[in-house]
Amino acid sequence: MIGAVTPRVVGSTEVYAIIGDPIAQAKSPELMNDHFMAHNRDAILVPFRVAPGDLASFIATFRATTNFRGLIVTVPHKIAVAKMVDVLGGAAARTGSVNAIVKAGDGRLHGENFDGLGFVDGLTKAGWHPRGKRCLVVGAGGAGVAITDALAAAGISEIALHDVDADRREALIAQLRSNHPQLTAFAGAPAAAGYDLAINCTPQGMGRSKGISIDLADATRPTWIADIVMDPQDTPLLVDARGRGLRVHYGKEMLLNQIERFGAFFGTLPSST
Amino acid sequence: MIGAVTPRVVGSTEVYAIIGDPIAQAKSPELMNDHFMAHNRDAILVPFRVAPGDLASFIATFRATTNFRGLIVTVPHKIAVAKMVDVLGGAAARTGSVNAIVKAGDGRLHGENFDGLGFVDGLTKAGWHPRGKRCLVVGAGGAGVAITDALAAAGISEIALHDVDADRREALIAQLRSNHPQLTAFAGAPAAAGYDLAINCTPQGMGRSKGISIDLADATRPTWIADIVMDPQDTPLLVDARGRGLRVHYGKEMLLNQIERFGAFFGTLPSST
Repeated sequence: MIGAVTPRVVGSTEVYAIIGDPIAQAKSPELMNDHFMAHNRDAILVPFRVAPGDLASFIATFRATTNFRGLIVTVPHKIAVAKMVDVLGGAAARTGSVNAIVKAGDGRLHGENFDGLGFVDGLTKAGWHPRGKRCLVVGAGGAGVAITDALAAAGISEIALHDVDADRREALIAQLRSNHPQLTAFAGAPAAAGYDLAINCTPQGMGRSKGISIDLADATRPTWIADIVMDPQDTPLLVDARGRGLRVHYGKEMLLNQIERFGAFFGTLPSST
Repeated sequence: MIGAVTPRVVGSTEVYAIIGDPIAQAKSPELMNDHFMAHNRDAILVPFRVAPGDLASFIATFRATTNFRGLIVTVPHKIAVAKMVDVLGGAAARTGSVNAIVKAGDGRLHGENFDGLGFVDGLTKAGWHPRGKRCLVVGAGGAGVAITDALAAAGISEIALHDVDADRREALIAQLRSNHPQLTAFAGAPAAAGYDLAINCTPQGMGRSKGISIDLADATRPTWIADIVMDPQDTPLLVDARGRGLRVHYGKEMLLNQIERFGAFFGTLPSST
């Protein structure tokens, strides 16, 4: 620990936090504090474990504490907190989910969700560009909602969606059609062949799970295979994909590419302190 | 800022805070984080500016947030917060004032006040020992209450107290007599001659104020002169005292000598996280 570099905390330091339950696994404290250091921000981000029943009072305290400037929000609070902020950004308004909150100079809380944007930023940096492409998304939970919204906003032409829960799948298809009239969204089988990109948005492959959510039979270049699972980095799906010579995209990219977005979001609005 | 050393914050880090209003002047974040580093504690202390009207809800949030482990409490919250904790330590119970809170493994909040102990620790380290001594204290506010209590608990024999507010002075004299039956406590003039120690516990001399609260005429060695004002370090009182060849004791010693006490208090109780 000694020698690791974190912003020096003084009495005038602005405080940020990541809230979730559990929280010990969170990587954002290290990543955001590195970002604050690199940008010479007198700011620090700390983890707070907040139970669902305590979320509303935590947000009220956050609102009242003037040098407590912003929050990253993780599982299980992203949907509940969207109802507690004052202003929603575009992705947050379309998806009903917030993963970052900043307090503006007038005290109002602005919420936005950068999960999908972070994922698309990562793909774009790696050389995969969404405009006009066809994509398979497996999993219509929070990650699936965020990623399909961002892909659609970035100009993808078709999204085939699979989820074992047909109601959840159809609800997301309807939401995508409503939010993005130019997009073709439909139910599809969980098989990657023929798509430009196939994304696992389920927990399959997490930890020691050996599950693979997407059938890669007959998939060939230039199909890319992406996973939102971060731990392990090499999920069974991505190992399978690499073995077939397909391009893979790691789960960690979604988080890594949100850090700049969080930093800009936290830095954009004037401080009232 | 780069190169300064602060504990590395990760998802499992325990969070502590100092709360006050204002807060930007607080020195505890730097001092406590140096302490945590030196003791290899996975812990960080951040500043939170909490207005008096928000104190109760802040404490409720602190109580509910499991990895939020302890608080240092400064002006103006020390008395109000004493009514919000579950268990009071000895000095806190005697003085009705709390400047540190730790959450025990069972979730209960323990409050104690180390202001007076820190002051006495500093004097003792410097070579001045309270037992049997006679002391003049000018100022019966929060600092005066804490310091007289700690001096009495450490075995001082006499305290002469001065305050421009006679009601406040008499209330503290009565409290000292009740809490410390062996102590002789009485109202005295603000003149140091004849005492073993004279302490300024008023804001006189703070900032650009030229005020001197204690008359040093006829004071001679071995009388010590102490000040609780930290900024400037060389208050007009201490400059006057040094000019007369008297031993002086700086205001910063009270805070510096509390850091070890805070660290022990925060580390003693089992964590529930």
